Amino acid sequence: MPVPVLGLDIGGANLKAAHTNGQACSRPYELWKNPSGLTDALASLMREMPAHDLLAVTMTGELCDCFETKRQGVTAILDAVQRAAGNVRVRVWNNQGRFADLDAARADPLPIAAANWLALATFAGRLAPRGPALLVDIGSTTSDIIPLLDGRPIPQGRTDPERLRNQELVYTGVRRTPVCALLGGFGAAEFFATTLDVYLTLGRIPEDPNDWNTADGRPATHPFAHARLARMFCADAETATKEETRKLAERVLARQVNRLGFALEHVAETLPSWPQTVLVSGAGEFLAPFVVENQKAFPPCRAVEISHSLGRNISQSACAYAVALLAAEESA
Amino acid sequence: MPVPVLGLDIGGANLKAAHTNGQACSRPYELWKNPSGLTDALASLMREMPAHDLLAVTMTGELCDCFETKRQGVTAILDAVQRAAGNVRVRVWNNQGRFADLDAARADPLPIAAANWLALATFAGRLAPRGPALLVDIGSTTSDIIPLLDGRPIPQGRTDPERLRNQELVYTGVRRTPVCALLGGFGAAEFFATTLDVYLTLGRIPEDPNDWNTADGRPATHPFAHARLARMFCADAETATKEETRKLAERVLARQVNRLGFALEHVAETLPSWPQTVLVSGAGEFLAPFVVENQKAFPPCRAVEISHSLGRNISQSACAYAVALLAAEESA
Repeated sequence: MPVPVLGLDIGGANLKAAHTNGQACSRPYELWKNPSGLTDALASLMREMPAHDLLAVTMTGELCDCFETKRQGVTAILDAVQRAAGNVRVRVWNNQGRFADLDAARADPLPIAAANWLALATFAGRLAPRGPALLVDIGSTTSDIIPLLDGRPIPQGRTDPERLRNQELVYTGVRRTPVCALLGGFGAAEFFATTLDVYLTLGRIPEDPNDWNTADGRPATHPFAHARLARMFCADAETATKEETRKLAERVLARQVNRLGFALEHVAETLPSWPQTVLVSGAGEFLAPFVVENQKAFPPCRAVEISHSLGRNISQSACAYAVALLAAEESA
Repeated sequence: MPVPVLGLDIGGANLKAAHTNGQACSRPYELWKNPSGLTDALASLMREMPAHDLLAVTMTGELCDCFETKRQGVTAILDAVQRAAGNVRVRVWNNQGRFADLDAARADPLPIAAANWLALATFAGRLAPRGPALLVDIGSTTSDIIPLLDGRPIPQGRTDPERLRNQELVYTGVRRTPVCALLGGFGAAEFFATTLDVYLTLGRIPEDPNDWNTADGRPATHPFAHARLARMFCADAETATKEETRKLAERVLARQVNRLGFALEHVAETLPSWPQTVLVSGAGEFLAPFVVENQKAFPPCRAVEISHSLGRNISQSACAYAVALLAAEESA
């Protein structure tokens, strides 16, 4: 009987939890606006999940600018975890692919920063065939492209800056990315609209009138997405046509696909040969086929959605699930 | 004896006032966060300025996403002006180069939106030689590039969307522009740093420990600018070197200069011949020589800083000053 473990993936904009029994959840939490509320938010999340003997933790929230440095951010997040965990034992994942206990993690906080991609890659690699492959996880804020060989991750970078330089981390996602970051200096350089508005408009993300987690704090519906995108070319809901905002959305989609395609090609070239399989996951899984099919100059390559193996619910909290399973194995 | 007029330029991030006697001031005001406080903010600004018989108003703040449409934004701003003005008569500038009274402006609000560039161009054109010339106003948030012929503005666009399409409006400036809007998908797509950090780092804008109007709400000083820029490549104050953040700052400067140079060339080509004079103004006046000198493929062209004629204080509130002088002439 394996140990029941709860995995936590603590980001700057979302808290994700997944239990080794397959139950998972993800909820928005704006850590940079309210770092002191993290303990309560984690405790409430943990109460809603099934019983567990162990907490497995990974994070990216330490980059939030409420923290002066990552060292400070990792420490603050670990403090919140400890308070929320109470008597439950905690294991903290690091960017060397190992777990540490809380004291060891606090003593050397930098390898704890932004290591969730490696948990996912270590776990997901088992679904990959022998030989070269890629894992492409497209999230709400960032995307990870990890080279795999015989199912094992062989990344060029371990820290975020290294991974960004090597295109293994692409700071682009399907909900939170400001549209201005994809327009290259054309259009309004303001936080008026995000990729959520793009994919609402293109019918790739369903409307949710209860989701106010948008650029202007108005609901995630088509009319408000139209208004937010219109503002990107200094128009408004009244003066812009739906064709104009749709055209902008298509342009942003194309830019994001090209940006991810550039990175995919760059990372694929670090493998001994062109991969035949790309494992895809994350809230932006729907983008991956565009990205993979865009590589027409290369041998054909198959996109395999991890959600087909795991269920869509876990796919959205895949890093949390991965870190839970890895911790369960470690303590088995 | 000319009528004493106070000009107001009501933006989304700054309120600017200038009196026909040459006194001027500019202060940050985050309209999108606090639209209901505008009346008090304007009234307080007006009390600090010399006595005046007339208020001349221009605005760009209607684009803020606290307003659902520009119509609603213009109306709300005019309401605030009226309440703050009390018994003082108000004239409102429009994008056809004329003034309207408050009732007429309310009845037809869209031509009131974002017309401040035309006040500046109409006024500054008088400092231009005969023949073709350009006005380049580089602000904290946006830049205007206006073609002039024999001192008169001959723009291709009148509204913001038209002007954006024609490169007469470039949504880039030297303080508020998010660095991610200039990195074209490379680096963190977050509101971690702005061009203020770039020009602090490059020594073009002086440090001001009392200015907390920054991406992370920490002071406008070199160490905090270093920390903010470091976050753009997912590093932090501790792990990034000063050489790295300086290199990023230089890269952003180059991109902004190229972006403005592209627009300058585009607008210059609408003139009957290449201009020999470019009038420059705004908080980013210091960028203009880079932009003008970058046009090496074209005949040489001289950058003339309006601040040399007007004094630096007025240059920062040039649109407010222009609208004040134009209203004084109208009522003379």
